[in-house]
Amino acid sequence: MKSVITVELPQQSYDIVVAPEGVAHLGNWMEPLKLGKKVLLVSNPIVFNHYGAKLNASLAATGFEVSHCILPAGERYKTLNSIQKLYDAALNSRLERSSTIVALGGGVIGDMAGFAAATWLRGIHFVQVPTSLLAMVDAAIGGKTGVNHPKGKNLIGAFHQPRLVLIDPQVLTTLPTREFRAGMAEVIKYGVIWDAELFAQLEAAERLDQPRYISEDLLQTILTRSCQSKAHVVSKDEKEAGLRAILNYGHTIGHAVESLTGYRVVNHGEAVAIGMEAAGRIAVELNLWTPEACDRQRALIEKTGLPTRLPAGLKIDEVVATLQTDKKVQAGKVRFVLPTEIGTVKVTDEVPSAVVHQVLQAIGSP
Amino acid sequence: MKSVITVELPQQSYDIVVAPEGVAHLGNWMEPLKLGKKVLLVSNPIVFNHYGAKLNASLAATGFEVSHCILPAGERYKTLNSIQKLYDAALNSRLERSSTIVALGGGVIGDMAGFAAATWLRGIHFVQVPTSLLAMVDAAIGGKTGVNHPKGKNLIGAFHQPRLVLIDPQVLTTLPTREFRAGMAEVIKYGVIWDAELFAQLEAAERLDQPRYISEDLLQTILTRSCQSKAHVVSKDEKEAGLRAILNYGHTIGHAVESLTGYRVVNHGEAVAIGMEAAGRIAVELNLWTPEACDRQRALIEKTGLPTRLPAGLKIDEVVATLQTDKKVQAGKVRFVLPTEIGTVKVTDEVPSAVVHQVLQAIGSP
Repeated sequence: MKSVITVELPQQSYDIVVAPEGVAHLGNWMEPLKLGKKVLLVSNPIVFNHYGAKLNASLAATGFEVSHCILPAGERYKTLNSIQKLYDAALNSRLERSSTIVALGGGVIGDMAGFAAATWLRGIHFVQVPTSLLAMVDAAIGGKTGVNHPKGKNLIGAFHQPRLVLIDPQVLTTLPTREFRAGMAEVIKYGVIWDAELFAQLEAAERLDQPRYISEDLLQTILTRSCQSKAHVVSKDEKEAGLRAILNYGHTIGHAVESLTGYRVVNHGEAVAIGMEAAGRIAVELNLWTPEACDRQRALIEKTGLPTRLPAGLKIDEVVATLQTDKKVQAGKVRFVLPTEIGTVKVTDEVPSAVVHQVLQAIGSP
Repeated sequence: MKSVITVELPQQSYDIVVAPEGVAHLGNWMEPLKLGKKVLLVSNPIVFNHYGAKLNASLAATGFEVSHCILPAGERYKTLNSIQKLYDAALNSRLERSSTIVALGGGVIGDMAGFAAATWLRGIHFVQVPTSLLAMVDAAIGGKTGVNHPKGKNLIGAFHQPRLVLIDPQVLTTLPTREFRAGMAEVIKYGVIWDAELFAQLEAAERLDQPRYISEDLLQTILTRSCQSKAHVVSKDEKEAGLRAILNYGHTIGHAVESLTGYRVVNHGEAVAIGMEAAGRIAVELNLWTPEACDRQRALIEKTGLPTRLPAGLKIDEVVATLQTDKKVQAGKVRFVLPTEIGTVKVTDEVPSAVVHQVLQAIGSP
C-alpha cells in the first residue's frame, strides 16, 4: 500500500510519497527525477544510525554517489554555524548545480539541509526523508527552510521546494513516544481546519497515543490525509499570502506558551494541543462553534496523550502580553484561527481580550 | 531626461530607472511600491560618505524610517561573516516582512545586501542603488545575490529579485577611472552579443576612457541600452537555464585570467576585455566572424583604455588547464560564447583546444 500526493506549484511540482519500506527504496523514487549523480546526505547521529545504511545502499544501487554530513541532534544546533559545516561538506563533495541534498531526520535536519540546498550555488536539488511524525505531516511540506538567529527562531531562511518528500511510516516505530504525540497535534489540527473525515477516523480509533496501537491502514490514512491537507493549502498559497494562515490554528496561543516556558517545558506539539483547546473555547465563547464540537476535539487530544491545560505556574497576563509580540500581529491586533465546524475555520482579529483572559483562566492549572 | 526599463518576470516585475539626480529622489521612486515603513540602508564607508546623507534625506522626506549598516569595502569582506552583521542589524532595526533593504554601493554591497534580503524572514523587499558602472549595467540586474566561500567565489547565494533598481549616472563622477573602465567592458559586451546600435554609438564617440569625456546623452544611452540588454536576457531566462549563457561572452577566458592572477593583477572588467579579444579571435579562426569585425571590437576596447593582451608572465598552459575547472564545464567540454556578427553570438563547446592555444599565444605578452 502506498500513496502519492502531488503538490502543484507554478514553477515545479513535486510528489509526496507515503510508502512502507520507502527508506529502502529511496534511490528508485529519485531515479525518474533526472537529478545529477552526486548526493549529500544530511542527518543526525541517532537517525543515521537507524537508517543511514539502508538509504546508502538504495542510493548506491541506483547509481548515486553519496557523501555524508552528520550534524548534532537538537534545536540548539539549528544555527548558521551548522550551515557553514554543510557548505564545507558541499564543497568537499564537489556538489554541482545538478546535485541533490537529501535530508534524513526530523524538522531540524530538514530545515537546515533545505536552507543549505537553497543557498549553495544559488539553489540545488533537495529531497526530504522526514523521520519524525511532526516533520512528515508538517515541516517537510511547504518549502520553508532556515535556521535560528541567537535572538529568535527561524529568522534566517528561504523558501525552497523539495523535488520529492519520501515518508516511510515504519520509521515511526523508532520515534520516542513523546515526539510521536507531538506530531499527532498537527494531525488533529488538519482534522479540525480542513478534513472532517480524518477527524472522524481518528475518533473511531481505540487508541492513538503510540504508533504500535495504530493499525497500518489507519497510520497510512493519517499520513496521507494530513499531507493532502497541507499540500492543498500550500499549493494555493506558496509564499504565505493568505490561505496558509489557517495552518496556524492552535499556534497563536501555542507559540506564546512555548516561548514563555523557554521551549523546555512543553514541546511544539504539546503547545499546539493547548493552543487548539484555547482556540476552540474562544470560538465557543464567540458563538462560532458548538460546545459539543469543542468537547469532541478535547476528547481526541486527550486520547493521544497530549495536554489541554496550561503548564503549572504560567501567568495568564504574561501569555496575553506575549501574544502581542507574535510576528503575525498587525496594527496591534492578534490574529486567531477559530473553528466554525469540524473541518472549517475562519481567521479573525476581532477577539476581545477579555474573552482570551477568561478562556486562559479556565484552562489554567488549578 | 530619464529612462524606465521594466524587467518582466513571472512572479513580480520591477523597474530599472536611469535618472540623473536619482539618488536625491529615491524615496519618491519607492513610494508607489507600497513597501513597509522600515528601511535598512546597506553601504560601505566611502560611498556612504558621498551619498548617504542625500539618500537619507529623500527617504525621510517620504516617510520611511531608515537605519544603517555600513560594511567595509572590498571583495574580501564578501563573506558569511558580513551577512551575520546584516542579520544583527535587521534584528536590531526590527525589520518586518514588509520592510526593505536598500543597497547603496557597487557589486559587493549589492550581492551581500541582496542575500540578506533573500534570507531574512525568508525574504523581504530589496532595492538596488548601484554606484559603480559595473554594478549598474550588470550586477544589480538579474537577481543574483550571495557571498564567497573561503575556497570559491559566489558559492553561497540565492536568486532574489529587487523591487527597484535606481541608477543615477551622476554618481559615476566620483568613481575611480579604473573602475569606470571595468564597467565599460560589460557595456561593449552588450554591443557585441546583442545590440549593434549601441556598438555603433560607442564607435562614434571620440573618447570613452573617462566619464567626463562622455556626453550626458551618450552616458544615458550607454546605461539605458546596457540595462535593456541585460533585462531582456534575464526576463527570458530568470534562473540561468539557457539564453543567459550569452552574458558570459568574454568570461570563459576572462575568469581563468582573473583566477590565475589571484584577482589582484587584473580586475573583472579588464579580464573580460581580454576574454572578449580572445573569443573574437577564436571566432575568426573558426570562420564564424570576420577579421574586420574583430578589429573593430579591439579598437573599441582600446578606446576605453582596457587591455587586449594577457598580463605579463601568464603561462598559456595554465590558462588552458584553468578553463577545465570552470563551473560551466560540462562533460569535460569548455563552453565558449562566440560572435558571428556584431550584435549576435552563438554558444558552442566545439572549440578545438589547438585553436585556444594558438589564440592565447597570439595575445600573450611578447
